[in-house]
Formats: sequence, structure tokens, C-alpha cells
Amino acid sequence: MFYGKVIGSVWATQKEAGMDNLKLLVIQPMDFKDSEAGTPIIAADRIGAGVGERVIVSRGSPARTLFKDKMVPIDAMIVGIVDSFEVAKEAEEEAWKSTNRE
Amino acid sequence: MFYGKVIGSVWATQKEAGMDNLKLLVIQPMDFKDSEAGTPIIAADRIGAGVGERVIVSRGSPARTLFKDKMVPIDAMIVGIVDSFEVAKEAEEEAWKSTNRE
Amino acid sequence: MFYGKVIGSVWATQKEAGMDNLKLLVIQPMDFKDSEAGTPIIAADRIGAGVGERVIVSRGSPARTLFKDKMVPIDAMIVGIVDSFEVAKEAEEEAWKSTNRE
Amino acid sequence: MFYGKVIGSVWATQKEAGMDNLKLLVIQPMDFKDSEAGTPIIAADRIGAGVGERVIVSRGSPARTLFKDKMVPIDAMIVGIVDSFEVAKEAEEEAWKSTNRE
Amino acid sequence: MFYGKVIGSVWATQKEAGMDNLKLLVIQPMDFKDSEAGTPIIAADRIGAGVGERVIVSRGSPARTLFKDKMVPIDAMIVGIVDSFEVAKEAEEEAWKSTNRE
Repeated sequence: MFYGKVIGSVWATQKEAGMDNLKLLVIQPMDFKDSEAGTPIIAADRIGAGVGERVIVSRGSPARTLFKDKMVPIDAMIVGIVDSFEVAKEAEEEAWKSTNRE
Repeated sequence: MFYGKVIGSVWATQKEAGMDNLKLLVIQPMDFKDSEAGTPIIAADRIGAGVGERVIVSRGSPARTLFKDKMVPIDAMIVGIVDSFEVAKEAEEEAWKSTNRE
Repeated sequence: MFYGKVIGSVWATQKEAGMDNLKLLVIQPMDFKDSEAGTPIIAADRIGAGVGERVIVSRGSPARTLFKDKMVPIDAMIVGIVDSFEVAKEAEEEAWKSTNRE
Repeated sequence: MFYGKVIGSVWATQKEAGMDNLKLLVIQPMDFKDSEAGTPIIAADRIGAGVGERVIVSRGSPARTLFKDKMVPIDAMIVGIVDSFEVAKEAEEEAWKSTNRE
Repeated sequence: MFYGKVIGSVWATQKEAGMDNLKLLVIQPMDFKDSEAGTPIIAADRIGAGVGERVIVSRGSPARTLFKDKMVPIDAMIVGIVDSFEVAKEAEEEAWKSTNRE
């Protein structure tokens, strides 16, 4: 999955089978230092994410499995709204080299 | 899914099984600031998108599921023609940091 | 799918189950301005593409579905030989902004 | 699969069906010269990887197959904790050109 | 598929279900001019590839289909050991423009 922030919405009237009643959000992929990481993508949302929120996005066929009984041709889905994250400081990581598994 | 604009068409006479009667369009991936984002790709279209229109493209196996009864070896499909989108201004997004979930 | 040109062939004697009797071609991904776009990949071919020809390549599991009854572990397939393509001039595209859907 | 190091954790209360009780770790992709290689991603973990450990991550639908009876919409999974690796020196590789298969 | 050279091995004791008895090799993606093309990845091998050998690697779910009866969460597999390849000289390719399909 990748980490991103919700930056907007997209609307389409003419669409493929299975795309009805889907909320489509624009997601800016982010690194964990609060910088943008690449081009925004479009993901479906069923859990009520709003603009400005940080989310977890799953891509590819796993995203589609949520609609088992229905043919939904999406390739990206918001699977969680991030409450918080914790990323180790460089120093802590480097402890690995001297003490861990060597 | 990614956001793009339709910039042309491709024709092929010699093709694989399942590729008959498929309209193949050339799509330029775009960011939401109206700049190009990467190399154009080829996507199948069944909803009548035309050159110049902004579209939503789904990739990978989800795209193929639309042809359940038929073996269609495509990996990209136009799933919506964009009417409009709304992307938050930087300022609005940043409000998240001070008020939302912290 | 992506657009590319056939630039060569690869041969392998030692190979996985399902890879027998597969013609493997080297494809240079291209943009539609006749420039190379990234590293060449290897795709299977059943429709007789030759060196120098422009082709449409499908990637991922859709490519594999062509071999339904057989377990073929490929992730890229030539699905069409390009006869011609037509890509809109910048000016035509920009007409969209003022006249189309706004 | 790709090689990475675990650099942190992510928590989400609001989430999609099938995301309950999943430990989600932040993984920094690495090359084998101990340099970072791209943006961190989020992967599920069931084998007890901890911050600082080097891991093998599998992406896409193969990752999801581990949850056969359950619909889990993840696209990345830690499939091994690396004990050690061995990467050939440039010189050894180059021996290939003169002695191997030519 | 992509073209690469085997540059090493990875070992893991703690691993996911289905990862037992799998030989995991480190593959450096290559272009066909003998230059490296991107970050090394990890692929499973059942056909006996060794360090220094040039191989064809298949990614995503097609790779996993080789283990039909077993749940193996891998996303990359060596599917062939390259004996030789032939890539057209620029001049030959360009012949296409004037003589082929125009």
C-alpha cells in the first residue's frame, strides 16, 4: 500500500459498468517526511475519507476484491484513514548494523 | 486509476485473440495542474471518449474484468469521462496539520 | 497497453514450465513522437511481429489469459501490430479547454 | 520481491473490510549497497518483523493469496526477514562475459 | 518480462507460509547494452540459475501460477536462462520508416 493525502474529488457522468455510486478521490502520494512523492492518482473510497486526511491506498486487483459480487473495474482503493504513524530516526535504524542479526 | 487526456487513436489489423472490435485510444497521463505526467499509454474505450477529453483510466486485471465472458488481453481501460474535478488549495490542505486528528 | 518497437529476439534453452515454443521478442517502449521511453522489455509474440515493427504490448495477468488451458508464466504479450496511429496536435487538444465540458 | 528495511508503523481506526488485526509496517526499499531506493511503502506483516530489520516484500495479488478464505485488500506483504545476503563483486560477474555461455 | 543478471542470493529463516524451499536470487535488471537499469529485485528460481548468468524474469501474478497447487506468495520468478540475444542496429530499425507499412 502507499501513503497519501486526499487532495480532491473527481466527477464523471459517462462511465463504465460497475462505476456507479463510487466516490472517487484524488490522492497525492506522500513519503513519511511530509513531502509529495509522484503524480496524484484516483482512488475509490467507501470509508468516508475527506480532503486533507492522510490515507492508506491499495492498488491493483486486491482493491477490487472488496466488491466480490459486483464487477467493479477499479485499480485503487482507500483501505484506511491514518490516525498516526511512527517512523524510526536514522540513528535507531543504524543500531541494526551492529547488534541485529550479525 | 490515473487521470489523463485522450490525444489520439491506434489501429492494428494483425492482432491477438479477443482484440477485435476494440477502440484503442492514446492517453496522455496528466497531473491535476494540467501538466503531462509521463509517457502516453494505450487504453481500450467503450464509453465514447473523444480526442481532447479528460478521462479516468484503470489498469491491470481490473480493467479486463469488464469482459467477463470473453478473453480480452487488455491491461488498460477508460472507465470514466471526467466532467469536473476539484483539488484543494495548498492552504486548505495544511489546515489538516493543526486541526485534524492531532 | 504500451506502444513500442520490436528491436530483437532472446533465446533460452533452460526455462520454466510453460515457456516452450514461445517466441520472445525484445521491445523498446516508445512515445508517439518516435523517441524511446525507458528500458526494453521482453514480450511473447504469437502474431508474427518482426524487427522494426511497431506493436502494442499488454502487461501483467491479462497477457497470460490468452493461454487459458496452459500454465504460461509470462507477464507481457504483443497483442497488436500497429498499422498507423493519429495523435492530435497540441492546438487541437487545447480547444478542449474553451469549448468542451466547461 | 524487493528488499527493504522496516522503518516504522502506521495505525488506522477507520478502515476497509478485511483490514482488521493487520499489523502495518513502513518499509524503505533498499538496494544491496545499503542505500535507499525510492519512496517508503506500507506492507502487512504476520511474521514479526521489527524496526531496523531487513525484509523481503512481495507486492500485488500474490501477497493477498496468503489470506485465501478471507477478503483482505492488501497489495504488499512481508514474506521473509533477511538473515543475510551475498552479492557478487563486479569482477566475478564480469567473468561471465569471457567464460560463460559464449 | 525483463532481462537481468544474477548478482547474488538472499537467505531468510523467518518467513511466510509457502516460502519454504525456495531459492531466492538477487537480480540486477539490465538493458541490452550491458548497462544496469534500476534497483536489484529478488526473484525465485527453480531452473538452476547461477551468479553471473543472464536471465528472463517474469513479475506479478503470472509468476505465481507456476505453483498452482500451493499457495506461494512470490511476485517474481526466473523463467529462462538466456543463451543469447540479438538486438537490431539502429540503422536496420530505421529502415522501417521508409519501407514498412507506409
